[in-house]
Amino acid sequence: MRLYLLPPDFNGQNQLTLTGSDCNYMVNVLRLKEGRQITGRDKSGKTYLLTVEKIKKGSCILSVSALEEEVETTDALPGLRPTKTIVLYQCLPKGRKMDEIIKRATEMGVRAIVPVKSKNCVAEPSSSSKTSRYSALVKEAIQQSGSLVPTEVMEPISLEEIPSHFKEHFTQDYCGLFFHQCELEENQKNLLSLLEGAGATVSAFAVVVGPEGGFDDGECSIMINSGLHPILLKTNILRCETAALYAVAAIQTISESL
Amino acid sequence: MRLYLLPPDFNGQNQLTLTGSDCNYMVNVLRLKEGRQITGRDKSGKTYLLTVEKIKKGSCILSVSALEEEVETTDALPGLRPTKTIVLYQCLPKGRKMDEIIKRATEMGVRAIVPVKSKNCVAEPSSSSKTSRYSALVKEAIQQSGSLVPTEVMEPISLEEIPSHFKEHFTQDYCGLFFHQCELEENQKNLLSLLEGAGATVSAFAVVVGPEGGFDDGECSIMINSGLHPILLKTNILRCETAALYAVAAIQTISESL
Repeated sequence: MRLYLLPPDFNGQNQLTLTGSDCNYMVNVLRLKEGRQITGRDKSGKTYLLTVEKIKKGSCILSVSALEEEVETTDALPGLRPTKTIVLYQCLPKGRKMDEIIKRATEMGVRAIVPVKSKNCVAEPSSSSKTSRYSALVKEAIQQSGSLVPTEVMEPISLEEIPSHFKEHFTQDYCGLFFHQCELEENQKNLLSLLEGAGATVSAFAVVVGPEGGFDDGECSIMINSGLHPILLKTNILRCETAALYAVAAIQTISESL
Repeated sequence: MRLYLLPPDFNGQNQLTLTGSDCNYMVNVLRLKEGRQITGRDKSGKTYLLTVEKIKKGSCILSVSALEEEVETTDALPGLRPTKTIVLYQCLPKGRKMDEIIKRATEMGVRAIVPVKSKNCVAEPSSSSKTSRYSALVKEAIQQSGSLVPTEVMEPISLEEIPSHFKEHFTQDYCGLFFHQCELEENQKNLLSLLEGAGATVSAFAVVVGPEGGFDDGECSIMINSGLHPILLKTNILRCETAALYAVAAIQTISESL
């Protein structure tokens, strides 16, 4: 389903004039003609039926009417919305990998993506230019996927700050996991048994994924001591952008099934 | 871990001369200098220690010695190999999406990727040129990830042929799943309970993922009647390339944990 995210200053008025990139999205990307309709959503998650009334050079005028229920969506895969909150703490990877991670994580309904600076990160924390590019990627992914989760990319933090960051911005009642290439504890639980145990009663998950070089021993100790659970996935070596999406897919599927 | 896949005609000889793209991979991609070593693997899965003896213009000479055990690997995520066989039956998506799916599925250790022609496919089944590009993508992904699974891209088939194709090429003892955007059966099981039930005793999974338009009712009936289980994932609408990797990650994680 194509979706239009209404501007932050939208206040429920019954007409809206779009210009610039928003107009371009409607007219040139979605190729909407006058009279065509599309679903819109405001920042609170309320949905509206938008009708293209007039297309001018550089602007288009929409009439706006509130929708009682969500619009049916169809695509290659399910339209059920995830009920568990997943926040991805992604240690900064090289180059443009973060863009890919942000796009896919948004599509999967991750609540927030938080860039993390860890020892093996070669990339620099997001500059403001990066931050605005990230926000644009999130908006695009939400509009494409029709995700009902208000995904956001947050300011970069350090590895040590993860637990306090999660408790401050989300909830005290969560399960934190990080992925490592070898077992760190005796009888370490696999992801399924961990989620069926500690994860079964919580509604939120903090998922920490390393950079290309992974975590060093000191970082692992810090995370374990702060209550995060080490997880070893029984799969191949994955590139870190694949790893992030693999981890989110696994955690979301299991936690939503319990 | 970087890995070099030895040519199909390699017969265990103790010296090997590489030319063309293989030489280019060693010299320009991996930037190996004379005296440097890398792990090689032959088509049977046996590993060798390769030493660069001489680099000439357009060719390089390697000495080859068999390795007793596998080489340690390190990266952002685990190096355990998956033990369950997963075959991805991917209804042909538009454009270059199939390339992305093949790369990531190979990285995750999927045993085979089989292009499927279904009603809503707009793409044409692979031409021979596509097939050779696919093989190159698989080789590259195996070499990058050091996957120990001999992934292959097979010839396109039709949706109806999936069960017989799997039994002929893999095993009779398998669990087949397809992903759909709504529930098709009363008390339809979620992925976790299905894998804990029917999936718990099998060692192989056939995973069917639709094209952009999904499956139509007739196709769903055909698959259900041939013993495939419909699965509804509790996530957002996903693009079909994301859907394929999401499904593989979820199935692999759960089945390897049981």
